[in-house]
Amino acid sequence: MFKVAVLGPLGTYTHEAAHKLFGPGVEYYDRDTIEGVFQALPAIADAGVVPQENSIFGNVIETYDNLREAGFVRGEVTLEVMHCLLVRPGVKLQDIQKVLSHEQALGQCRGFLRTHLPSASLVKTSSTAAAARALLDNSSNCAAICSRVCASLFGLTILYEGIQDETANFTRFYLITSDNKVALPTWLPTIEPSRALIRILAEIHPSSTGPGISKFLAALQLDFIRIDRRPSPKSSLSQYVYFVELQGDPNTEAQRVDTWSSRVGRAVQRVEEAGGVVEIIGLWPHRQ
Amino acid sequence: MFKVAVLGPLGTYTHEAAHKLFGPGVEYYDRDTIEGVFQALPAIADAGVVPQENSIFGNVIETYDNLREAGFVRGEVTLEVMHCLLVRPGVKLQDIQKVLSHEQALGQCRGFLRTHLPSASLVKTSSTAAAARALLDNSSNCAAICSRVCASLFGLTILYEGIQDETANFTRFYLITSDNKVALPTWLPTIEPSRALIRILAEIHPSSTGPGISKFLAALQLDFIRIDRRPSPKSSLSQYVYFVELQGDPNTEAQRVDTWSSRVGRAVQRVEEAGGVVEIIGLWPHRQ
Repeated sequence: MFKVAVLGPLGTYTHEAAHKLFGPGVEYYDRDTIEGVFQALPAIADAGVVPQENSIFGNVIETYDNLREAGFVRGEVTLEVMHCLLVRPGVKLQDIQKVLSHEQALGQCRGFLRTHLPSASLVKTSSTAAAARALLDNSSNCAAICSRVCASLFGLTILYEGIQDETANFTRFYLITSDNKVALPTWLPTIEPSRALIRILAEIHPSSTGPGISKFLAALQLDFIRIDRRPSPKSSLSQYVYFVELQGDPNTEAQRVDTWSSRVGRAVQRVEEAGGVVEIIGLWPHRQ
Repeated sequence: MFKVAVLGPLGTYTHEAAHKLFGPGVEYYDRDTIEGVFQALPAIADAGVVPQENSIFGNVIETYDNLREAGFVRGEVTLEVMHCLLVRPGVKLQDIQKVLSHEQALGQCRGFLRTHLPSASLVKTSSTAAAARALLDNSSNCAAICSRVCASLFGLTILYEGIQDETANFTRFYLITSDNKVALPTWLPTIEPSRALIRILAEIHPSSTGPGISKFLAALQLDFIRIDRRPSPKSSLSQYVYFVELQGDPNTEAQRVDTWSSRVGRAVQRVEEAGGVVEIIGLWPHRQ
């Protein structure tokens, strides 16, 4: 069976994102850290799912730091963080005296709690999934705030869905494999890739005459939609690793004779000719 | 007297960076957070010093998030993080039984401690400066690991300097004021600016035809050396704030009739004509 490593524990939002991509037909493995997901490839798992960015907190540094040296992006999925109120089957709102969840989720549902459960005590847990799991050992006056995947995972009932105060809380995830050759499950849509991630090593030169990131980006001659900068593993303030996400047009990409992959390949070659150290570390389809 | 707000407490590396810029002739105010430094301008302080990036940990998110809405960069200074072993005057290496410092600094000096103070116990403090201050109340068998500015600040003696394991640990700081009009102390070098920071709001369009960050960067027609991306305050996964640091050539900038400021102004105008929402939020001189 196809094996997918996710940032754990199972039942967190990364697991839900992986579920949205692969459904129930794969085996999920949870890892304690994002680095652990990268390290699981390819020996322990065929693919991994890691958070890439959140609409409030920005890019996920640990994911980019791992992409400096490992992993190939094969897909993406965006999830609206939807906190749910879960209980053991049969428990009603008026029974609830304690609400368990991760500190952050409790904070994000303050409005709901004030209105619907003003006298319930709040109990912090190490993750939202841990709160759901804890319901199994607790008396029936407890509820958990967590992702909806916990309902099926632990046999719980969803009392409310989307109880967070702010509605605009999206997280985007990358599907990664150890390299571009790993075969993905056959039931995934096989449409022509229209996105790519490239990694460019750039130095700051004392004068503007040396080749730098501005020259490399100009050499691409393709549209890019995200740029992220991390220190190079060398730890210097004049050498950086840039991650550039390229975008083609998903509507026309399939009809072109000159494929997206080959156009990305030529763009990378132009960067190399301009003096850049560059590598393609992602190619994937994107539907609108 | 000119007032400078720094990320506190006094005696930390940000204070040392500010000292490197302004010397002893200004008043230093410490603030608990980077946001506090921004908020101190201009009512409480004339200028502020905040960390911008570190060669190991990358850019300082809190500084960039504040720059989304406030502050104007007027200068920069880079500091090599040099941990020192400080003691009360007269205390010798063989007297030391306890070493106090922030957890991170203790970790970064593991090699030195193992070699020179193998039997000393390590005591964690809330900051490196707090360790230095604590020496004043402690018996004479203690030492602190902190920045060298703590020696003059608390009347302590430097026993060793540069005791960290890794040598490549640099932090770069921005000197900020509330806007470009605040007059800096007259003793600072008044050379022609050759760097600039601009802030561009960019959206991801579903197809590559819309104006996006790649088009805006191309419209600049000036060299840039750093790009940083943060979520827009709107919290959406399709709108971002980019910070682009532009670089002129400090050796020729002074001789040009067409000044750096006016060239940056025209570059920004070109981005506006391409449909970008853009602002100059920094202009400063840079010596090599």
